[in-house]
Amino acid sequence: MKREYMLDDVIAAISTPIGTGGIGIVRMSGAGCIALADSIFIGKKKLTEKATHTLSYGKITDGTGGEIIDEVLVSVMKAPHTYTKEDIVEINCHGGSLVTRRVLEAVLKTGARIAQPGEFTKRSFLNGRIDLTQAEAVIDLIESKTELSRQAAVNQLEGRLKTAVREMREEILDMIASIEAVIDYPDYDVEEETYGTMEQGAKKLLARMEKLLEGADRGKIIREGLQTVIVGKPNVGKSSLLNWLLEEDRAIVTDIPGTTRDTVEEYLNIDGIPIKIVDTAGIRETGDVVEKMGVEKSKAYAETADLVIMMLDGSRPLEEEDKEILSFIRGKKTIVLLNKVDLAQKLSLEELAEYVPQEQILFISVKENDGFDALLDALKNMFLDGHTATAEDAMLGNTRHKDALYRAKEAMEHCMETITMRMPEDFISMDLQDANRALGEITGDTSDEEIIDRIFTKFCLGK
Amino acid sequence: MKREYMLDDVIAAISTPIGTGGIGIVRMSGAGCIALADSIFIGKKKLTEKATHTLSYGKITDGTGGEIIDEVLVSVMKAPHTYTKEDIVEINCHGGSLVTRRVLEAVLKTGARIAQPGEFTKRSFLNGRIDLTQAEAVIDLIESKTELSRQAAVNQLEGRLKTAVREMREEILDMIASIEAVIDYPDYDVEEETYGTMEQGAKKLLARMEKLLEGADRGKIIREGLQTVIVGKPNVGKSSLLNWLLEEDRAIVTDIPGTTRDTVEEYLNIDGIPIKIVDTAGIRETGDVVEKMGVEKSKAYAETADLVIMMLDGSRPLEEEDKEILSFIRGKKTIVLLNKVDLAQKLSLEELAEYVPQEQILFISVKENDGFDALLDALKNMFLDGHTATAEDAMLGNTRHKDALYRAKEAMEHCMETITMRMPEDFISMDLQDANRALGEITGDTSDEEIIDRIFTKFCLGK
Repeated sequence: MKREYMLDDVIAAISTPIGTGGIGIVRMSGAGCIALADSIFIGKKKLTEKATHTLSYGKITDGTGGEIIDEVLVSVMKAPHTYTKEDIVEINCHGGSLVTRRVLEAVLKTGARIAQPGEFTKRSFLNGRIDLTQAEAVIDLIESKTELSRQAAVNQLEGRLKTAVREMREEILDMIASIEAVIDYPDYDVEEETYGTMEQGAKKLLARMEKLLEGADRGKIIREGLQTVIVGKPNVGKSSLLNWLLEEDRAIVTDIPGTTRDTVEEYLNIDGIPIKIVDTAGIRETGDVVEKMGVEKSKAYAETADLVIMMLDGSRPLEEEDKEILSFIRGKKTIVLLNKVDLAQKLSLEELAEYVPQEQILFISVKENDGFDALLDALKNMFLDGHTATAEDAMLGNTRHKDALYRAKEAMEHCMETITMRMPEDFISMDLQDANRALGEITGDTSDEEIIDRIFTKFCLGK
Repeated sequence: MKREYMLDDVIAAISTPIGTGGIGIVRMSGAGCIALADSIFIGKKKLTEKATHTLSYGKITDGTGGEIIDEVLVSVMKAPHTYTKEDIVEINCHGGSLVTRRVLEAVLKTGARIAQPGEFTKRSFLNGRIDLTQAEAVIDLIESKTELSRQAAVNQLEGRLKTAVREMREEILDMIASIEAVIDYPDYDVEEETYGTMEQGAKKLLARMEKLLEGADRGKIIREGLQTVIVGKPNVGKSSLLNWLLEEDRAIVTDIPGTTRDTVEEYLNIDGIPIKIVDTAGIRETGDVVEKMGVEKSKAYAETADLVIMMLDGSRPLEEEDKEILSFIRGKKTIVLLNKVDLAQKLSLEELAEYVPQEQILFISVKENDGFDALLDALKNMFLDGHTATAEDAMLGNTRHKDALYRAKEAMEHCMETITMRMPEDFISMDLQDANRALGEITGDTSDEEIIDRIFTKFCLGK
């Protein structure tokens, strides 16, 4: 794999969130960045003369002899014990957005170039301080919305997934080495013994992979939230349900600018299950009176959701529209909420049972505040198999990891077949190499540039 | 003046803006804060063992032996060379809002209490590192929206106003000391000589005060922006004017969350003049077709504005509504824009001249993009006496400073009278003491607690 990253220039960016605050930080990284910072710094001592990991009080000017932009504290951290493994300068200035921007402009004038999103962390990866799973943990941590997802990200940042993957790869490489030895020195080959050892090794690895994959679905929920959509005809109570859920949320997470794109997303944290309600229908905006989402839109959103909450009005009979939506979501994880149980019921349960299994139908009354616990239990049963979600489940970080591990598992299964069928030894080696490559993608050892680039573009600026 | 601030506890707050970013900072200040931080810090060395102004890599836990919240870099700065003159710890964590909040919670569990807005800066003031003008400069700097206001704030932060005020106070105190000597030892009194010296001193001081006050109006504009309101009947083109001005703004300043409260404010920066248009009428929202603001509302907003831009439609005769508004704003700094000069004119200029001086009437056509330069010139003439605004003008920081200096000047004028009338010497001393007290309010030496408290409540959290 060929890597042609520019690692020899100095990058700079504002690393604190945009807005008004007490402190704003402009960060620089790269060989020579300390000298560049010196050219706009006025202090007791030159920054280049300071020891590593020290803070200096001084002023930032607009170029040599230029006017003073701000009073600052400057952190100097010298390679290699830094975030990027390169020299790093962090200018802590007064946190106004104008001041911080002006300091960045002064830094850029010294010859630094503006960093791409995630470029500091990318350098940390390319310089070998962290692997790809740890780099990904950095974004996960910054964007974590619940305690569990934060814990999972911290675990991953500490290298738990990396270590697990590296251990498996080492076992695989050992197996490959033995096989190659057998192939190179066929005289020493005691065929049955070789196949026996290989089988044992492959079984052990398979078991470990399966165990990791087992927690993956729970892990995905913890990390990414349960992508949930509320569908149903107008006036069945979708907006009331949303408001009700928001009220029941015991640890509401403030919505953070930049995390939502085209749609409005509401994060709920219900007993540790992060639920991301995609309010594509604009339920919140339109209010209680009319809910805009039609049948077609309901279908489109249901398609990509992890969970579909279908609302029905128990006081009205099942209509064609309802049936159409019900047929469409048959294959999905669905909870059907029969709202308005406080009114006289006109909906035929027999008819409904043709579309949804009994256990997925819940009777609620949002108005009477009735049925919330049952909904919570249903959610837990459906997604956690009755377990409580833990950060440990989230060992397997994201879909990318799961997918790569799944391919590694397939390669190992193929390897088992090769062994059982007593195929020639180099076939075993080829299977093992496939598994090794797939695992290496998780940590970034065998990923191609495009994947790596895609990961870092998800970062915020200045990280 | 009695001060009963709690200065013996450790305060803590998030010092970076709220939101998603690469770095979030939790700041602690107060004696013992380094030991408190140690109780949740895991690193190579204890923080209490580190030298001042150093950075340590490590982890923050949720109390002793608790789970790890984040990987961090911790700054240790020991009294007295710190922002507050107290021990300071700054925990730089991953910038997600959840992570940063969790680190703050851990810090608060150690026994620190949450800081009030501006409390770090307040301690800096109470501990004598900065005076009140410098404390005020900190907010000004953070909230500065234009280059000029940033420069003015930096100058003030560097102590230019403080120095000017202290110099004047010292001269006054010298004069008081001479007078007291004369009173205590009347034998040595050569009356004419004393009055002569006093007169000279008072004249010099008065001149300096007048010079400072001269720039104050320009300074206020630079710092606070020109509070501007656009009034006029519906459909005269108010919203088009606003959009036109926004387009002409050559250095648009992003609107920052939290700076606007009840009303929408648009900042324009026109040739260095920051214009704050209070869009209380919701001109922007309502769009071109109808502009909601009625006559009564126009009056109410005009009352508090620095500048009233009255729009008239030249293609319609002057109506009762127009006349009512024109009468109301007669005393204010007003520019009357006669819009739609591209159409046939039906408005009687003779009639209009009864309400507004000729030079305040401008002919424009927003549609034809005509008349902008004339408006700019009028603004400059009206507020800067034809000068270009400079940061130097803003020496006198804000209304509070101007008001106190004005009172000091009055006391000095009174002092001059006392001298001219050859009143007894202790009358001179009393006048001088009045002036001294008024000047001391600017720097905070003689301000009462209430004023000081009010100043710091304007700060953001964590500063």
